[in-house]
Amino acid sequence: MNDIDVVRLHPTPEQYAYAFGGPREPLLRVRPGTVVELFTEDCFGGLVRGPEDLPSKVCEFPYLNPVTGPIHVEGAEPGDTLAVHFVDIAPARDWAVSTTFPHFGALTTTHSTAMLHDPLQEVVWRYGIDRERNSCRFQARFSDHTVELPLDPMHGTVGVAPAAGEVVMSITPGAHGGNMDTPELRAGSTLYLGVNVPGAQLAIGDGHCRQGEGEVCGTAVEAAMETVVVIDLLKGGAPAWPRLEDDRFLMSTGSVRPLEDAYRISQHDLVGWTSSLTGLHQLDAYQLVSQAGLAPIGNVVDTNYTVVAKLPKTVLGGAPAYDGLHRSLREKGLEYLRTR
Amino acid sequence: MNDIDVVRLHPTPEQYAYAFGGPREPLLRVRPGTVVELFTEDCFGGLVRGPEDLPSKVCEFPYLNPVTGPIHVEGAEPGDTLAVHFVDIAPARDWAVSTTFPHFGALTTTHSTAMLHDPLQEVVWRYGIDRERNSCRFQARFSDHTVELPLDPMHGTVGVAPAAGEVVMSITPGAHGGNMDTPELRAGSTLYLGVNVPGAQLAIGDGHCRQGEGEVCGTAVEAAMETVVVIDLLKGGAPAWPRLEDDRFLMSTGSVRPLEDAYRISQHDLVGWTSSLTGLHQLDAYQLVSQAGLAPIGNVVDTNYTVVAKLPKTVLGGAPAYDGLHRSLREKGLEYLRTR
Amino acid sequence: MNDIDVVRLHPTPEQYAYAFGGPREPLLRVRPGTVVELFTEDCFGGLVRGPEDLPSKVCEFPYLNPVTGPIHVEGAEPGDTLAVHFVDIAPARDWAVSTTFPHFGALTTTHSTAMLHDPLQEVVWRYGIDRERNSCRFQARFSDHTVELPLDPMHGTVGVAPAAGEVVMSITPGAHGGNMDTPELRAGSTLYLGVNVPGAQLAIGDGHCRQGEGEVCGTAVEAAMETVVVIDLLKGGAPAWPRLEDDRFLMSTGSVRPLEDAYRISQHDLVGWTSSLTGLHQLDAYQLVSQAGLAPIGNVVDTNYTVVAKLPKTVLGGAPAYDGLHRSLREKGLEYLRTR
Amino acid sequence: MNDIDVVRLHPTPEQYAYAFGGPREPLLRVRPGTVVELFTEDCFGGLVRGPEDLPSKVCEFPYLNPVTGPIHVEGAEPGDTLAVHFVDIAPARDWAVSTTFPHFGALTTTHSTAMLHDPLQEVVWRYGIDRERNSCRFQARFSDHTVELPLDPMHGTVGVAPAAGEVVMSITPGAHGGNMDTPELRAGSTLYLGVNVPGAQLAIGDGHCRQGEGEVCGTAVEAAMETVVVIDLLKGGAPAWPRLEDDRFLMSTGSVRPLEDAYRISQHDLVGWTSSLTGLHQLDAYQLVSQAGLAPIGNVVDTNYTVVAKLPKTVLGGAPAYDGLHRSLREKGLEYLRTR
Repeated sequence: MNDIDVVRLHPTPEQYAYAFGGPREPLLRVRPGTVVELFTEDCFGGLVRGPEDLPSKVCEFPYLNPVTGPIHVEGAEPGDTLAVHFVDIAPARDWAVSTTFPHFGALTTTHSTAMLHDPLQEVVWRYGIDRERNSCRFQARFSDHTVELPLDPMHGTVGVAPAAGEVVMSITPGAHGGNMDTPELRAGSTLYLGVNVPGAQLAIGDGHCRQGEGEVCGTAVEAAMETVVVIDLLKGGAPAWPRLEDDRFLMSTGSVRPLEDAYRISQHDLVGWTSSLTGLHQLDAYQLVSQAGLAPIGNVVDTNYTVVAKLPKTVLGGAPAYDGLHRSLREKGLEYLRTR
Repeated sequence: MNDIDVVRLHPTPEQYAYAFGGPREPLLRVRPGTVVELFTEDCFGGLVRGPEDLPSKVCEFPYLNPVTGPIHVEGAEPGDTLAVHFVDIAPARDWAVSTTFPHFGALTTTHSTAMLHDPLQEVVWRYGIDRERNSCRFQARFSDHTVELPLDPMHGTVGVAPAAGEVVMSITPGAHGGNMDTPELRAGSTLYLGVNVPGAQLAIGDGHCRQGEGEVCGTAVEAAMETVVVIDLLKGGAPAWPRLEDDRFLMSTGSVRPLEDAYRISQHDLVGWTSSLTGLHQLDAYQLVSQAGLAPIGNVVDTNYTVVAKLPKTVLGGAPAYDGLHRSLREKGLEYLRTR
Repeated sequence: MNDIDVVRLHPTPEQYAYAFGGPREPLLRVRPGTVVELFTEDCFGGLVRGPEDLPSKVCEFPYLNPVTGPIHVEGAEPGDTLAVHFVDIAPARDWAVSTTFPHFGALTTTHSTAMLHDPLQEVVWRYGIDRERNSCRFQARFSDHTVELPLDPMHGTVGVAPAAGEVVMSITPGAHGGNMDTPELRAGSTLYLGVNVPGAQLAIGDGHCRQGEGEVCGTAVEAAMETVVVIDLLKGGAPAWPRLEDDRFLMSTGSVRPLEDAYRISQHDLVGWTSSLTGLHQLDAYQLVSQAGLAPIGNVVDTNYTVVAKLPKTVLGGAPAYDGLHRSLREKGLEYLRTR
Repeated sequence: MNDIDVVRLHPTPEQYAYAFGGPREPLLRVRPGTVVELFTEDCFGGLVRGPEDLPSKVCEFPYLNPVTGPIHVEGAEPGDTLAVHFVDIAPARDWAVSTTFPHFGALTTTHSTAMLHDPLQEVVWRYGIDRERNSCRFQARFSDHTVELPLDPMHGTVGVAPAAGEVVMSITPGAHGGNMDTPELRAGSTLYLGVNVPGAQLAIGDGHCRQGEGEVCGTAVEAAMETVVVIDLLKGGAPAWPRLEDDRFLMSTGSVRPLEDAYRISQHDLVGWTSSLTGLHQLDAYQLVSQAGLAPIGNVVDTNYTVVAKLPKTVLGGAPAYDGLHRSLREKGLEYLRTR
């Protein structure tokens, strides 16, 4: 692997960040094109290990959802496009957890959707991870039921420093990325983020062994991860909202409330992207996306809700996004995997 | 096919209905278990055939979205569960249309999301349907671009008479079904609807050759359809909101605004359904759905927005919904197809 | 009172309607200009009289929110404008009630904002009405606290038959009026409604001794009312949404979800109304409403939410709405009051 | 005025802040009880002075909505309650401006409610301020119409450093206060804010000569202000969301999207506040607020929407909030005014 720069980043406990933005010193500086092997802690900082470890007891606000970073990308300037290609995402332990959390989730009173009900019961579920079988095992808490679910590892939280000098808690998704909680952030995907500050200040966290669409109870199958990314940079071209690409799809995201506005943002961006790649008139692109597009929900539980707009690349007639960057990063990732 | 009752329903132009509910005489009366071959007109009543036929000119409000029915199901009483299994949905013509429509769609000012902008341009796209290739062809209006898209025929509108004596335009989705505009209503799916009035008064319309999730421009690839359904009845057990089942998934729906409430309704119903089928405690079911569930968006354009909550039946440990009715209707449908 | 036609309408128990629209026979036919003295039952049909009468026990769905009507207005045709001026609204009994109701209210799980919580406790509060002191007395249920509140009698529900042949439960507000639950519907106000069917089919109910903005717990101080209205008609000019006028303000309404869309509808209509009355350019009217307008919330609990947009008539430079109809109805109402 | 500490704060142009939170040095340090005379620039930094000064041309993102501060309040610790009593708010110039701004406002496509329309025209209105007549004069841009509107000076933006180390642009309202844009922030009102960081780091800006409820076009009658506040501190008791008090009302605020959630937050807080002041059971307080409460909308245009919940103090039976702090600050303010 003499052609690929590979660096490793495994933070010490006190090195984790809990926000995007701010004066924090980078944990790492990399040149575009670098492969980074990184360790991410789970959203509870590894403190919730079983049914007795209630998050409201063992975790301390605001030290939730630690992210690994920031990573300074050399040469990145405001207006540039940061590309983060996910090569591999592997659970770092043989267990994971999920929980209800008071005032968090889509089917409970929250601080925003405020109601007079007492909170739902706080419960922890511990999942066994079986990497051989590529599965995680749900064990009911109030009966003996168990279900084996396939692993589909992903990162809930990936982002850069926000615009306008803002500092945003890592649990919030937005135009800077952050806690989008979409299953599309899996190995094989490339995330494009607009750069707002010199060096971009990328950070990654909140690994999920898998999650349902919307993450309805508020948490996924939360796990520490051993993750490999390739980080690259395109000068200029910053998208207004995070975009994704995998071998089959282009994807736009929107993260805001209410949920229909997150849908609108993502579809609006996808229509514009389609138009610019194909030369189609805006209304023709609107029509094409209307018939060929998908709209998987990311989350309906975080401080902003996330929806993804997704278009098969086959309908674009071969027009490559970002000069084919996804393909080249994909190849570099496969090359890395072959030789590590 | 001596064991299967088959009847045919092809309305005359003046027989179409434009609402669910009301004193309208049934077009057909069937016993539970009957196969019905029916013709449905497209959402424009077949009047929009090409770029010159602007819907705002050739269609007359409120005569939009005609539905074939009502069909009176003998023995159906309030509180019962009507099952409608879709055996086959085939475009009836070699063309279909889609349009922008003033004040309709997710990325435009509407009568509800009222803004000061002039309406977007009203445009009609005509699609060629090629049943041999199983495709429909998008032809851009403002350039020469064409794209072939796979057919995925479905019905946007299926419902019964609403509760409380309400009469609801066929373009509105709700607890009675109606214009849910979800691609899940395709051949192979069974729809479960709560019965509100004697005979249920089923009606079906709004065939789509395919649609994107959310139907963002407001209309799908709209087509008249030759459709075959099996209609059956379970005494009691009426679901609060329409449910669906296919060979792999159970599905709940919610249709309301804002979009997060449609999501909540569908997930809440799916959690309860999961709990009742498996005996899982409500919070265990909440957890399982959180990790294993999908949440495809139906529409974000109609008078109510629709979201589907979807769970693989594999996680239910074999517990059959509605006494296995989907499987038996599926078999009857396949038997019908083999022998017609 | 030889110049004023006065008729009286006091329905028998079985004569109340529970919906707007449908084939129901009018209870009364009046010529434009008629004064109608009518009795309205409270939203519980008079069945909830004290703490023991839980609505979920004594009321039967869908027989909630009875309205007095329909009243057929002679000469009213689709596209016309019905004017209903409220001359007097007086509590008919010396008590009134309010309640929490399971799955209803803004701070509780509902059928739309569906959550996993158990319902809030169902509680009935009985208010004593003192017409001499012009007050109603709140008596806490869980302690000895009492508070005297001023009467501000109003009707929650006033509407006509909806467009497109729809039949809508009386608890739903919309473009046809219905259960808007705005305190602005008090004596001295004129309501303008677009006519959708011959005779308009006006109905009135849901008297409130007073209500807070938003009606947060789901019900107001609910009372049977002795009410006097003058009903009049303008040919043409049907507003898209209900409008109101009193001596000081013009008001537009919007009833839809989410709440920001109800706000948008009402502000959009008020901007257009201002522009048409003054000749101001749309953007100038937008600016003027932005600085001089009010936006009282009606309800955030019904099937649609209601917001009112309100502009002082002083900023319109004397341009009268609807040819000064409010003033002439106001004078007729005062004349009626002087002579009854 | 020998008993009252009075200090003055008039920032130099480069001293304005554009965010709440962050490491910025305080412009001023005061002891609790201090009267501060401060100057605030308008939301455009004084750069928009007439129809030719389009904000998109003369203003530079993110240097919008400058605030005067931060002010470090000695002794303020996280969990304390900061009280800011507005003694006087007076327009500093004889003119003010308002504008439409591309992608900003409630009746236009925005970055969140993204649509395919071109932006509305960007227009500037200049208002003449007449302090003698206590009025501002609207001059239509597209015709000769003028309207005199009463002054009702207020501050759109008042807040402290947010929790969790966040840095939030000054245009965003939230739990820390910020750009709530409610007319209730006028002279005579006391604002209570929870303290999140040592010294609280108060900042004030965005003076409005007046605004309509909702600020529908996106901007009010924007003006630089000469403002006098008394700043005080209560140990502990930090409210979850900003609260207000004037001589007649207690008020809670909520700032979030969608608008119904902002309503829910504010009503939920007011119910809890009422309960804690009076000893009423939560459900009794819910009932009382339901009948006696008001719910004026602040803004429906900013990154979060704001609603206020408002209860007349008369219904509380004399129970004083925050130990009668509003009254004593009010008296200090009047004393200041008498003697300056």
